[in-house]
Amino acid sequence: MSASTWAYSNGEIVPLEQARYWPNDLAIIYGEIVYEATRTFGGQPFKLKEHIDRLYRSLHYCRLDPGLTPEELTEVTLQVVERNSPDLPDGSDTWIFHNITRGSHPQFPGVGRGDAGPSVLVWTHELGFKYWYRYYQEGAHCVTPSIRQVNIATQDPRMKTRSRMFLALAEQEVNALAPGAYTLLLDDEGRIAEGTGANFMLVSDGAILTPRTGTGLAGVSLATVRELSLDLGVEVREADLTLYDVFNAEEAFLSSTPYCLLPVTRVNGTQVGTGHPG
Amino acid sequence: MSASTWAYSNGEIVPLEQARYWPNDLAIIYGEIVYEATRTFGGQPFKLKEHIDRLYRSLHYCRLDPGLTPEELTEVTLQVVERNSPDLPDGSDTWIFHNITRGSHPQFPGVGRGDAGPSVLVWTHELGFKYWYRYYQEGAHCVTPSIRQVNIATQDPRMKTRSRMFLALAEQEVNALAPGAYTLLLDDEGRIAEGTGANFMLVSDGAILTPRTGTGLAGVSLATVRELSLDLGVEVREADLTLYDVFNAEEAFLSSTPYCLLPVTRVNGTQVGTGHPG
Amino acid sequence: MSASTWAYSNGEIVPLEQARYWPNDLAIIYGEIVYEATRTFGGQPFKLKEHIDRLYRSLHYCRLDPGLTPEELTEVTLQVVERNSPDLPDGSDTWIFHNITRGSHPQFPGVGRGDAGPSVLVWTHELGFKYWYRYYQEGAHCVTPSIRQVNIATQDPRMKTRSRMFLALAEQEVNALAPGAYTLLLDDEGRIAEGTGANFMLVSDGAILTPRTGTGLAGVSLATVRELSLDLGVEVREADLTLYDVFNAEEAFLSSTPYCLLPVTRVNGTQVGTGHPG
Amino acid sequence: MSASTWAYSNGEIVPLEQARYWPNDLAIIYGEIVYEATRTFGGQPFKLKEHIDRLYRSLHYCRLDPGLTPEELTEVTLQVVERNSPDLPDGSDTWIFHNITRGSHPQFPGVGRGDAGPSVLVWTHELGFKYWYRYYQEGAHCVTPSIRQVNIATQDPRMKTRSRMFLALAEQEVNALAPGAYTLLLDDEGRIAEGTGANFMLVSDGAILTPRTGTGLAGVSLATVRELSLDLGVEVREADLTLYDVFNAEEAFLSSTPYCLLPVTRVNGTQVGTGHPG
Amino acid sequence: MSASTWAYSNGEIVPLEQARYWPNDLAIIYGEIVYEATRTFGGQPFKLKEHIDRLYRSLHYCRLDPGLTPEELTEVTLQVVERNSPDLPDGSDTWIFHNITRGSHPQFPGVGRGDAGPSVLVWTHELGFKYWYRYYQEGAHCVTPSIRQVNIATQDPRMKTRSRMFLALAEQEVNALAPGAYTLLLDDEGRIAEGTGANFMLVSDGAILTPRTGTGLAGVSLATVRELSLDLGVEVREADLTLYDVFNAEEAFLSSTPYCLLPVTRVNGTQVGTGHPG
Amino acid sequence: MSASTWAYSNGEIVPLEQARYWPNDLAIIYGEIVYEATRTFGGQPFKLKEHIDRLYRSLHYCRLDPGLTPEELTEVTLQVVERNSPDLPDGSDTWIFHNITRGSHPQFPGVGRGDAGPSVLVWTHELGFKYWYRYYQEGAHCVTPSIRQVNIATQDPRMKTRSRMFLALAEQEVNALAPGAYTLLLDDEGRIAEGTGANFMLVSDGAILTPRTGTGLAGVSLATVRELSLDLGVEVREADLTLYDVFNAEEAFLSSTPYCLLPVTRVNGTQVGTGHPG
Repeated sequence: MSASTWAYSNGEIVPLEQARYWPNDLAIIYGEIVYEATRTFGGQPFKLKEHIDRLYRSLHYCRLDPGLTPEELTEVTLQVVERNSPDLPDGSDTWIFHNITRGSHPQFPGVGRGDAGPSVLVWTHELGFKYWYRYYQEGAHCVTPSIRQVNIATQDPRMKTRSRMFLALAEQEVNALAPGAYTLLLDDEGRIAEGTGANFMLVSDGAILTPRTGTGLAGVSLATVRELSLDLGVEVREADLTLYDVFNAEEAFLSSTPYCLLPVTRVNGTQVGTGHPG
Repeated sequence: MSASTWAYSNGEIVPLEQARYWPNDLAIIYGEIVYEATRTFGGQPFKLKEHIDRLYRSLHYCRLDPGLTPEELTEVTLQVVERNSPDLPDGSDTWIFHNITRGSHPQFPGVGRGDAGPSVLVWTHELGFKYWYRYYQEGAHCVTPSIRQVNIATQDPRMKTRSRMFLALAEQEVNALAPGAYTLLLDDEGRIAEGTGANFMLVSDGAILTPRTGTGLAGVSLATVRELSLDLGVEVREADLTLYDVFNAEEAFLSSTPYCLLPVTRVNGTQVGTGHPG
Repeated sequence: MSASTWAYSNGEIVPLEQARYWPNDLAIIYGEIVYEATRTFGGQPFKLKEHIDRLYRSLHYCRLDPGLTPEELTEVTLQVVERNSPDLPDGSDTWIFHNITRGSHPQFPGVGRGDAGPSVLVWTHELGFKYWYRYYQEGAHCVTPSIRQVNIATQDPRMKTRSRMFLALAEQEVNALAPGAYTLLLDDEGRIAEGTGANFMLVSDGAILTPRTGTGLAGVSLATVRELSLDLGVEVREADLTLYDVFNAEEAFLSSTPYCLLPVTRVNGTQVGTGHPG
Repeated sequence: MSASTWAYSNGEIVPLEQARYWPNDLAIIYGEIVYEATRTFGGQPFKLKEHIDRLYRSLHYCRLDPGLTPEELTEVTLQVVERNSPDLPDGSDTWIFHNITRGSHPQFPGVGRGDAGPSVLVWTHELGFKYWYRYYQEGAHCVTPSIRQVNIATQDPRMKTRSRMFLALAEQEVNALAPGAYTLLLDDEGRIAEGTGANFMLVSDGAILTPRTGTGLAGVSLATVRELSLDLGVEVREADLTLYDVFNAEEAFLSSTPYCLLPVTRVNGTQVGTGHPG
Repeated sequence: MSASTWAYSNGEIVPLEQARYWPNDLAIIYGEIVYEATRTFGGQPFKLKEHIDRLYRSLHYCRLDPGLTPEELTEVTLQVVERNSPDLPDGSDTWIFHNITRGSHPQFPGVGRGDAGPSVLVWTHELGFKYWYRYYQEGAHCVTPSIRQVNIATQDPRMKTRSRMFLALAEQEVNALAPGAYTLLLDDEGRIAEGTGANFMLVSDGAILTPRTGTGLAGVSLATVRELSLDLGVEVREADLTLYDVFNAEEAFLSSTPYCLLPVTRVNGTQVGTGHPG
Repeated sequence: MSASTWAYSNGEIVPLEQARYWPNDLAIIYGEIVYEATRTFGGQPFKLKEHIDRLYRSLHYCRLDPGLTPEELTEVTLQVVERNSPDLPDGSDTWIFHNITRGSHPQFPGVGRGDAGPSVLVWTHELGFKYWYRYYQEGAHCVTPSIRQVNIATQDPRMKTRSRMFLALAEQEVNALAPGAYTLLLDDEGRIAEGTGANFMLVSDGAILTPRTGTGLAGVSLATVRELSLDLGVEVREADLTLYDVFNAEEAFLSSTPYCLLPVTRVNGTQVGTGHPG
């Protein structure tokens, strides 16, 4: 899991080490930063169009014009991937990140990028499978913290923003009690919302059930699961899911772009399904 | 409003231009950044102890140990203020900012500060009174956006964090409709919560009423108002306040460290009190 | 937009000027008044049966027996339309209104209609297209006020009642900030509910999405859109919609009986779709 | 309980029978009507200033300028009372009502008062004590319907508006099940809010407890109870009250201007205190 | 309705009179008791597998291992039914109950079953149709109390537990006001949840509508209705139902295992459909 | 911690082993059981009057008449304590429990107590200090589960009922993750409610803060803390408390009758105050 060498930063390909944010950047001042994360498979970006389309939905929701068209950003992304690829170990893959911030706060001029407008960064980082390996072996343990998913009336969870301290608070609570467990957020009515950085789904009576649209990120991997299931004739449908559904599911999974699908074998210490990855 | 020259950054006084965040900093990745903002009066920091005490309460709430004691951080703050003071125009004052982030994300090593732990930055910036001048003249116009204050079950509004994209969303909504207006947030039950970056208070029947503790930041300026009012024999008390109270108030104010107290003369286009600053 | 000449009022066709409510009418005392509004096309009432059926659902919900059967009320409605038609300018159409009140408050006898029971009024008014003309040209701008749709636990929004001061409060808030904008209400969880006097719908991925049943009036025009879409093979489905969906929609519309469909081109100052009517 | 003869209507004293609302009045169209209700004692208006002040707070909340100052309206009120007093039976008293509507809807000109602006009506009606007599004897039975008080986020219950169909729905539900019982509304969290047209209070451990400000109307009679209690050294304080408090109270009361204080001896069929008026 | 003679209690068939709980049983201490209720038709258990499967879902939700497999419990159930059948009057049927408790509280050893672990009881009782007979004749009257269904965030209503004092409170409230009426619970947003011990459904436009999954018990009889309707080509679908839907339904029913389907002809005193059983 | 020998059961003093509940008792059927728990100090019941008064408030809330006056129940309680005292080891004390159930379900006659009405049980059990000893040494670790306190709209937490499976669910969740930790419930807005079986309080700025009345049981020990604090001139006041307050408290405690006051030194793995008992 070493860092990549090159990044795209506001118009140029630069060494990643030079891609930085000053304290007057609105990402720092207000959390005004929208992002995307995808990965490569065999060196090729995975569903890059879908991730970039979702990025522009996030940007439009918070009224941030990055100054590049989706096509331009796609082009730039491919350049960064290609530029970094010779430095990657054989057979390895990378994360691809897009960060868009609103630029400098107008009250604090004269530092950093000044009034240069929104900041666009594309960077990559070697994917470390070590990190998830044991989950594939044993299955993940999910824990529901007492902290709740942010309400739609405050911030739509579908906007993929870095401004999510509450997720950090939730993960800290979980890790203080169950080190190594995955955080599974409930919404403010006690329903399953999403994992931190992952969508949750379960299998019940042969169908795949997911929390309703709008309770969490509109996952690209989740959409892939939907497509594959459709091909296989498996029904995928949204439902109001609670711990009752989870404890009584036949199987459960987390889906996320870096690791695709992880089996969930325990939730809050209780076995789900057979308790072993399927 | 020019930038100051020097900042304290992780152990040294450096030119502010060198105080930067890499994309693997948890401030950028997760919004894990806690801050404080105070100012000088006649070059002396205002209630520095109270602001630093509040900073450590925010830090403890999100389990972030900055690696400095409050006393050490106070000492460093005074050094930064002193170092920058020769460069300030006569009679001008400065903001004083403290930013604490959790440091690099462990999954993305090898860039920036690596595993050096939490990052501590103290910086200052000349206070620009131009910005508030017209509000003193005409009074501020406050507008309540449709976006609600974050719920306590998600993130206690008393933690002073930079992770607050929802405030940016709220301000954008207000500014798209009423350019120049101040954003006054309601909580999810429709009660007055706080201004963005300011506490709200009103005068009714000779008493000063403020929203209840926990609906917004525990303002240091608000605490100062409480002390002064006590000295003057004016009652200050918490209440469930709605637009009914605001429209029918004798006077209303926003309080914040940089500008102390701003008179509010209109809310959602409706006159409050006489409609003129007191 | 001149007034019509004749109305049906409690058993007789009278000049509209004589159709009045006394201060002891429960419409005035308690807001106990249920209504319907439809229009003519080429002089013929539009979906009169559907509107009258909906009226009786509202009446049954608030336990108000108007003393006429739906068939009798239909007959009376056609009489009023016919009686007024000679006075209408050529090519013009009219609103058709039904007002049912519970009659006099029993504590205040001796004025007005006394104990004569529920009051039934049918009146018409020339439709003024001037009013909506510019929306067809430029598209409507919708604004979400801070005031929320009434909760089902208090009053089901499907009952079409005149007792809706909260809609007036919401419209005032919007008009104070964005004169000429349409009011688009959110429900108490921050989801799109309805426009004041109109249903809202959007187009996403080629399907038409509407807020869920029960968040607003069960629109007759909306039902017409559903029928037409079915004929055209376009999917229409209910969804939990937020500003994220609206900002990212391909198109958006308000539907209401007088103007059928208005294109929505901006919401809260942000462009929706191309920003130009269809 | 006979009707009074004279009323003030938009500038003149007229026979009450002539004080009427046309169907294009915004009171009828949108429920845009604010009101007050007080009474006479020995022919003199009770706390007229307090009622008129409260009326102007309701008006300011909904941005309605009646075109009269509070002093002018007071003057007019006294004239109406005086004018009607010769027609009253000896020893009887009257209700005094103020109705302010926003006037005609601009889309429906040419009927009634046209564009003449807000409508102001002052009328009186003989107070019928018969109506409450048995409650003084036996005490009132209060019933909590399943319908909830309107939320502050929708409409502040302190605005005294006629737009309150939900109160009528609540009363119908109660009267269908317990004819003659008083309706006691809960708020949406299940706490006691207010009676329909009356404030609720209870006695516990020698103190008088009332629901919190903002859960119901700011009662003038309740304020009178506060003053009298203060004189007697009895503590009056706001609290979050539930049926647990009510069932276990030593005594309970409804307060309202026409009848002052009614003892509550049963709630939902359960005895409160001794079950007999104090 | 006489008691049956025999029961299965923790490993043996005993006289029902000997099947008892000591005060240190967690059923008594904490309400930790899960149950099922089915019945016989012509002496044969009705959908025993479905009830036992649901029992194990309830048990797994509250992490209670009864020490018997579903197959073993089925076997035991059949034995109890058979053992009691000679004592039943000809043509009569019985309830079949399963009670599982967590056993003794570890802080109170030395009484009753001590540390013998979870307690399993299977008992039966003659079904008394007298009890429901008049509902078949006249239809049931349902009343919505002010007390709300328990929230999912507290306890999923799909777990069939005896710990449901709130249902008793709701029934008492209803019975104090409308003796003999059925209790129909609303959820905390004012939507129809379920009857106490029964699912609710209505017929609208020829389709059968039921409250959404998770607002009440996952009824086995309701599932039977779904199957039968599917066979008959009648659509059954979940919806957000309110009193508006109920009052305007063509027909409404309660479904429960002992009585299958009861027609609902009035709700809160208001006629539903024709007001007579279908 | 051995069981006591004697209990009062429905009119007689019997061996505790004979005090039992049949499956048709409403305690078992519906959780209709109200209770109290106090203890002895030096063999004398602690605040017996306060506990019995609170018991009758719980009983009145759920409309259960135990058939004994508070004085009679007090008398019976003293008899049970006295009868058991010779069997207690020297220097030991006992719990004193009161259980009142509504008696048999009328649909299941012919078993157990039949139609004998409410059941009253008074029993005692030796207090085992071993259980709490380590908490006095190290302080308790409190954990907030994802499961929320029951809402007032469903069941007032001040009624002391055994029907509280949700507390068991919450404790199971906590114990699965942090064995030995105390469960600290949040209410549905994310505020501190109560410990399971204990009130929570904290010290901040020299004052003692407790959650608001109605969020949990009205603790008798908490009332004792209030009295003692008043004597010492320490302010005790109710507040909306969150984890922010808890993490930043100077000290925190659980109060409950058996152990009086336990120091809380960690919450969700985070140190509170010095992290050591006071």
